[in-house]
Amino acid sequence: MVPPPELDAILEAHRRIRPHLHRTPILSSRSVDAATGANCLFKCENFQRTGSFKVRGALNAALGMPDGVPEFVTHSSGNHAAALAFAARLAGRPAHVAMPVGASAAKKAAAQAYGARVVECEPTLAAREAAAAQLVAETGGRLVPPFDSTDVVAGQGTCALEFVEDAGRPLDLLLVPVGGGGLLAGTLIAMANLSPTTRVVGVEPEAADDAARGFRCGIRQPQVLPVRTMADGAATAMSEMTFTVMNWLAHDIVTVPEDSIARAMRFVWERLKIVIEPTCALPVAALLEGILDVRGQTVGVILTGGNVDLDRLPWLAPRPLPT
Amino acid sequence: MVPPPELDAILEAHRRIRPHLHRTPILSSRSVDAATGANCLFKCENFQRTGSFKVRGALNAALGMPDGVPEFVTHSSGNHAAALAFAARLAGRPAHVAMPVGASAAKKAAAQAYGARVVECEPTLAAREAAAAQLVAETGGRLVPPFDSTDVVAGQGTCALEFVEDAGRPLDLLLVPVGGGGLLAGTLIAMANLSPTTRVVGVEPEAADDAARGFRCGIRQPQVLPVRTMADGAATAMSEMTFTVMNWLAHDIVTVPEDSIARAMRFVWERLKIVIEPTCALPVAALLEGILDVRGQTVGVILTGGNVDLDRLPWLAPRPLPT
Repeated sequence: MVPPPELDAILEAHRRIRPHLHRTPILSSRSVDAATGANCLFKCENFQRTGSFKVRGALNAALGMPDGVPEFVTHSSGNHAAALAFAARLAGRPAHVAMPVGASAAKKAAAQAYGARVVECEPTLAAREAAAAQLVAETGGRLVPPFDSTDVVAGQGTCALEFVEDAGRPLDLLLVPVGGGGLLAGTLIAMANLSPTTRVVGVEPEAADDAARGFRCGIRQPQVLPVRTMADGAATAMSEMTFTVMNWLAHDIVTVPEDSIARAMRFVWERLKIVIEPTCALPVAALLEGILDVRGQTVGVILTGGNVDLDRLPWLAPRPLPT
Repeated sequence: MVPPPELDAILEAHRRIRPHLHRTPILSSRSVDAATGANCLFKCENFQRTGSFKVRGALNAALGMPDGVPEFVTHSSGNHAAALAFAARLAGRPAHVAMPVGASAAKKAAAQAYGARVVECEPTLAAREAAAAQLVAETGGRLVPPFDSTDVVAGQGTCALEFVEDAGRPLDLLLVPVGGGGLLAGTLIAMANLSPTTRVVGVEPEAADDAARGFRCGIRQPQVLPVRTMADGAATAMSEMTFTVMNWLAHDIVTVPEDSIARAMRFVWERLKIVIEPTCALPVAALLEGILDVRGQTVGVILTGGNVDLDRLPWLAPRPLPT
């Protein structure tokens, strides 16, 4: 198993990456507070460079690479691709990215705009890993995995660190979406050390509930296939490391129905006037659907990203998914 | 002619309304700066209470009313309706609003959600004014006009005041959309006093260019009918007072093509990750289309509002308007 980072690695990651990234703001919303009865704080990683928190982990890994590494390789359903492309450009190296067929066109275009070469593959974790391995063999580059990496998870943990520093009050609860579990693992390690009284809860789509089922039974579950959630970032399975950290430290993993994701995304667009993507809407859906009892509490939410295809907006008028 | 406010009235308005409103943030965007060669600062009134700057003027007028006024009446194509409804609620009075047929459903719903009674009328300034006059006769209420009012224009001027205080550097240029001219007039009076070296330029849709033509010839022009711009807030004509202030103090009034409005709106959604409405996109369109030479300058933009109908999004995929 890849070792999880300790707190020191997260603090070191923050020193390394912060000169290149935004200190993203924390917003609140009367509408959300009225709808939930809680005091909700939103850390806006949708405003982060490249449009998502993923740049924290990718940049920490890229800047931590030894000088001899000539090129970077990764696989990603979207945001990690642009994040690594951005990080590679900053480090002055080429990047090669395997992206699954059906990945968001906006996310592919973003990776290419930062100078990465994008290669398509099948939308399973196995196919993505195989495609990345082939790119490594071809280019002699070094793999920067989207989540199964000590350095990447350390980078993702820097978001919780800023949240604790900037929130202005202790968080009773902190909600994050769960996909591969890199953000969840980094957040759990940071919070266990910096704010041990905060309960950290992961949120998944019902239609991709491998983390929730694995958390219940203690056995890591395979990816749910075929993918049938609009929350593309949450469709992947966890790694042994991120799963282990979740089982150690998470308070709970909850799931939300597919149609609640579109509703939550729309609520945020209309009321907070900010653009978030479906995966980012998962914790908001949990709040608005009353899945968690949060009355009277201070609830932190990491808004993970804002990269949506504006040409593909059936999201906004939710309808039943094809079965 | 209704007298325009002086600087003192704007300062007094600010003291009166600021306890109830947000101090909206100023954002910048590498994408916009790269596209324009300027250093652009965006004052985000889309994050303001009720979703637009209009609440500044409405609240200043409502809080300044003598105690004996029982009810408030207005007419509005949208944002002033919600603004007055909010202001009336804060002042503990009923509000009645005439809104044109075809006005944004989201804007009507917002006015109603704040407790206002909404009455439909034809989409001309004359029909709106007649409907409002009838509501006044019916209810004995006092009219709070959307722009042709000293108190309303004084309230709108508070936005420029905050911009000057918070920008951190002098603005070479300040861009605002022009509809009825309330924001333009308030901004011009504030800037002429507080930052006289800043050029203030109004931006209008080509399809509703009454202000631009009036500015050229010095004679106030009637509303362009039928309305065929998506920038609903810019479709109205100016009042004698706002027109006079524009002619005194504006540096220029420029127009942008209809399809550039949708492009600009989309650019802001995708790059700044914030939701703005079409009227709000007018100055951004002027910047992105190269209509103004802004290279090397510090350019302020008032992002006026973020109230869009997410169900009516042909805006996002621009196509020719029906003729």
